[in-house]
Amino acid sequence: MKFDVFTQMEYVVRSPGTLILNIHALRTPNQTVVNEEFTVDPYIKVEELISAQGENRLMRFEVNEPGTVKVTYKALIDNCYELTDYHEQHEVMVAQLDVTVLPYLNPSRYCQSDKLYRLAHNLFGHITNPFEKVVTLTDWIHTNVQYLSGYSNAQTSAFDTVTEQAGVCRDFAHLGIALCRALTIPARYFTGYAYKLEPADFHACFEAYLGGKWVLFDATKLVPLNGLIKIATGRDAADTAIANIFGDVTFTTMQVSCELAEEGFEPVNYGAGAYQGLSYL
Amino acid sequence: MKFDVFTQMEYVVRSPGTLILNIHALRTPNQTVVNEEFTVDPYIKVEELISAQGENRLMRFEVNEPGTVKVTYKALIDNCYELTDYHEQHEVMVAQLDVTVLPYLNPSRYCQSDKLYRLAHNLFGHITNPFEKVVTLTDWIHTNVQYLSGYSNAQTSAFDTVTEQAGVCRDFAHLGIALCRALTIPARYFTGYAYKLEPADFHACFEAYLGGKWVLFDATKLVPLNGLIKIATGRDAADTAIANIFGDVTFTTMQVSCELAEEGFEPVNYGAGAYQGLSYL
Amino acid sequence: MKFDVFTQMEYVVRSPGTLILNIHALRTPNQTVVNEEFTVDPYIKVEELISAQGENRLMRFEVNEPGTVKVTYKALIDNCYELTDYHEQHEVMVAQLDVTVLPYLNPSRYCQSDKLYRLAHNLFGHITNPFEKVVTLTDWIHTNVQYLSGYSNAQTSAFDTVTEQAGVCRDFAHLGIALCRALTIPARYFTGYAYKLEPADFHACFEAYLGGKWVLFDATKLVPLNGLIKIATGRDAADTAIANIFGDVTFTTMQVSCELAEEGFEPVNYGAGAYQGLSYL
Amino acid sequence: MKFDVFTQMEYVVRSPGTLILNIHALRTPNQTVVNEEFTVDPYIKVEELISAQGENRLMRFEVNEPGTVKVTYKALIDNCYELTDYHEQHEVMVAQLDVTVLPYLNPSRYCQSDKLYRLAHNLFGHITNPFEKVVTLTDWIHTNVQYLSGYSNAQTSAFDTVTEQAGVCRDFAHLGIALCRALTIPARYFTGYAYKLEPADFHACFEAYLGGKWVLFDATKLVPLNGLIKIATGRDAADTAIANIFGDVTFTTMQVSCELAEEGFEPVNYGAGAYQGLSYL
Repeated sequence: MKFDVFTQMEYVVRSPGTLILNIHALRTPNQTVVNEEFTVDPYIKVEELISAQGENRLMRFEVNEPGTVKVTYKALIDNCYELTDYHEQHEVMVAQLDVTVLPYLNPSRYCQSDKLYRLAHNLFGHITNPFEKVVTLTDWIHTNVQYLSGYSNAQTSAFDTVTEQAGVCRDFAHLGIALCRALTIPARYFTGYAYKLEPADFHACFEAYLGGKWVLFDATKLVPLNGLIKIATGRDAADTAIANIFGDVTFTTMQVSCELAEEGFEPVNYGAGAYQGLSYL
Repeated sequence: MKFDVFTQMEYVVRSPGTLILNIHALRTPNQTVVNEEFTVDPYIKVEELISAQGENRLMRFEVNEPGTVKVTYKALIDNCYELTDYHEQHEVMVAQLDVTVLPYLNPSRYCQSDKLYRLAHNLFGHITNPFEKVVTLTDWIHTNVQYLSGYSNAQTSAFDTVTEQAGVCRDFAHLGIALCRALTIPARYFTGYAYKLEPADFHACFEAYLGGKWVLFDATKLVPLNGLIKIATGRDAADTAIANIFGDVTFTTMQVSCELAEEGFEPVNYGAGAYQGLSYL
Repeated sequence: MKFDVFTQMEYVVRSPGTLILNIHALRTPNQTVVNEEFTVDPYIKVEELISAQGENRLMRFEVNEPGTVKVTYKALIDNCYELTDYHEQHEVMVAQLDVTVLPYLNPSRYCQSDKLYRLAHNLFGHITNPFEKVVTLTDWIHTNVQYLSGYSNAQTSAFDTVTEQAGVCRDFAHLGIALCRALTIPARYFTGYAYKLEPADFHACFEAYLGGKWVLFDATKLVPLNGLIKIATGRDAADTAIANIFGDVTFTTMQVSCELAEEGFEPVNYGAGAYQGLSYL
Repeated sequence: MKFDVFTQMEYVVRSPGTLILNIHALRTPNQTVVNEEFTVDPYIKVEELISAQGENRLMRFEVNEPGTVKVTYKALIDNCYELTDYHEQHEVMVAQLDVTVLPYLNPSRYCQSDKLYRLAHNLFGHITNPFEKVVTLTDWIHTNVQYLSGYSNAQTSAFDTVTEQAGVCRDFAHLGIALCRALTIPARYFTGYAYKLEPADFHACFEAYLGGKWVLFDATKLVPLNGLIKIATGRDAADTAIANIFGDVTFTTMQVSCELAEEGFEPVNYGAGAYQGLSYL
């Protein structure tokens, strides 16, 4: 499916510093960047880095002049997804997991799965089908955690959200990841552009590793699962920040949009009793 | 320098599970595994995995029979280190850091550097030489944090230790890493065998990325810096656990030793006013 | 019912300090101290203080000589309880609460009810009868939290226990209190001697303020509710410590016992569907 | 000194609830309420409660009609303070503390002094004069913690602030209290109207118990110490909330002012080397 994505962000620079932005659509076998344009105004030379983990596309540049810097990214993306039937799926045993997947079982800054072990097992340990397990915990988050802007902040973690039960997409994703890992299901953070997200913004959700694929889950249920353009994956938001800022530089304003560039979109979501998992590659 | 390292660990298995051990000495240009022997008793087939990050050597095996499993590792290691003069060294700017180093600026499970930003700058921000900065924060930890077995646990993080000021080598290392990252100095966790550590045990300390090298620091000051055999590096203890256990398997006893296998060892430590940083490669 | 209670505790004094013990049975209209004996060996003059809140009996004395101090308390206590039917009971509205009860709605050191608001309402908000609400949350704690010695410590709070789901009587009580307060039900910590507690120890549970009375609840379900001798009540364990120690004084050993001193004891517990609340005065 | 104090607050009521406000100036031997006026518009009958601890004046009323409720308080207050020389003062030993003062040594919701023991002793344990100790820790907070609106929230505690080092008057006070208690100096939270506070608002600071008196300290240094009108004291902000709201009632706007009502005010603050402690009674 083709999507037009766009973002524009402004920063105020007060002293020399470095910015590392992670807003470019990922290039994968299932996601083609048909065309894209990235500008920094006033002009600054930008270096593209590919992160070792996740192959995320990082744009690094130095801001040496005090003033305003405006960053614009627009792209036409063509992506596709796969649906897999998990009816008969058993859990992938740790003994069979690929070594590149193992780190996604570890606790991380915002996903303290080591503290959620008993809770996760008390709530979801009885479910044997691994897809059903993750669908159920995603639904549990959706039901119990209130979507509330301004409650959480950049330091809020899954350990907070599981009890305080309020937050935004980032918090929903962290909690989903932490619960999966506590249940020995590898899980990672996913950032992207999202079709039909209101108000328009970057979106975060998560992927669980089921039957050898990374399957997408979104506890916010704010958007269709097949309307996402992948920007980055990582252990949690610490690995996939939209912007890492070094120096006395302040973010001021942002616009984001994600629109269909062709017709025929039919939303996919996991309904009751569904066993079709959606994967981007 | 040549060292004989040895460990023996016992586990009690009650139901089928998987163990992933990270106790093998790392193979690096500066650390040669002259010979080594690894046995699991009763015999179990073991798979060696090389972690994507850090190239740590993970031994994975399934334990399917209830009973006791005894694991033994012994090796003769020949390693060497480099001393670098950091007198004239400037900080490596974020704009120059290699992409593989960038993740070591991010906060992690046990090193919430994002919460220590102001504290780190208040305490150490005035020091311009980056080596001196890390030596000073290492000394600050050594002076203020009490080495105390049994105070901290597997969930204790740098955010706890910076205030509660008690812990073991793991906690000292996490705090060192968190302070470095808060000061925009990449830092990572280091586990190893340690010569002269009493009581004998695995040891943990940390490396800071200075002038393009990973330089070793140990806030516990329990052992000579040049008596360490590297097992693993990672973001923090979550990445470098001696053992990851999946299933109803319990660790019972452990022996560790690290002895000199040749003569002529002269201990290296950072004294007052020193600018010679020690690196293993 | 008559009970013989006894405790003996030893402390090692290394430098002059002060001890404040809170081990004496409370004197209330429903709890008579028939006789009691308190000795400190070697002899030290002891001052009895009555706490402003809770009227707890604090024994304060200075320990000026290095060495061992042995404290012994034994008493014959006659107490009785009331059973109240809460079938038709409505919640006491905040507008009707006595001013002395209001502080027990506030969050405290170990009972961060302000953080548990949404969770408590999601789990128990639908229950209208206040007694049933507290019985249900007590049962929820009993079902979900594992009684496990050595997991928690003196800093563990309800915010930890609600997620980590392991602890001892103190942790069970703190969580019960925090959930009640989050539901606008005043609740307080209760320490006492407990008949049939194994292994013998001091016990902690909690009281909720229902229909104008402090009703007893015990999420551990380790002992009959009518076999408790009240020592103290307070906001949480911070107010009702068995011992507050100031100076370089270390607790070493302790014995506690609580035995029936007459026949005819019939255990009372809240069974399924019960609406009879037990109150000590 | 005479001061005119004033506050007006608006609440939006959506369903019946109860408000408990704590905005009235305290009546003490040293603080006379010359005249005062309290109105609720539209008219609602208000009950004045005197809190058991602190004798704070709580105004409780039910809001049963949906709509806006406007609360206005204005008063003419005449207060005075005492200055005490603490040059020769020794610490009050725990063995001599009045029983009503002892609870102010305990950790509380926002002042986890039990976790700050080593830190407090490392930083301030060497200072023998107790007044100097509290002045020094107050200055340390002032120097290290950044006054920053919007960083902390209603759940932020001293354990957070000691490391994150940003917050508002409430956070400065909580940290001061926690450090005092960790040093075995009783300390309590103080709310009041503050002359010269900009922007105008309620203010919070703290009192330490020195030489038998509650001495005022303010780590924010935003206002003269002798320009405060005491509203309430308590263990921390949990005990002294300006408003406790029960029900679906939302605070919307507030005005506060505190003006001199006579001439001749000369500001008092603790300068370098000062040993004159200021107490309101």
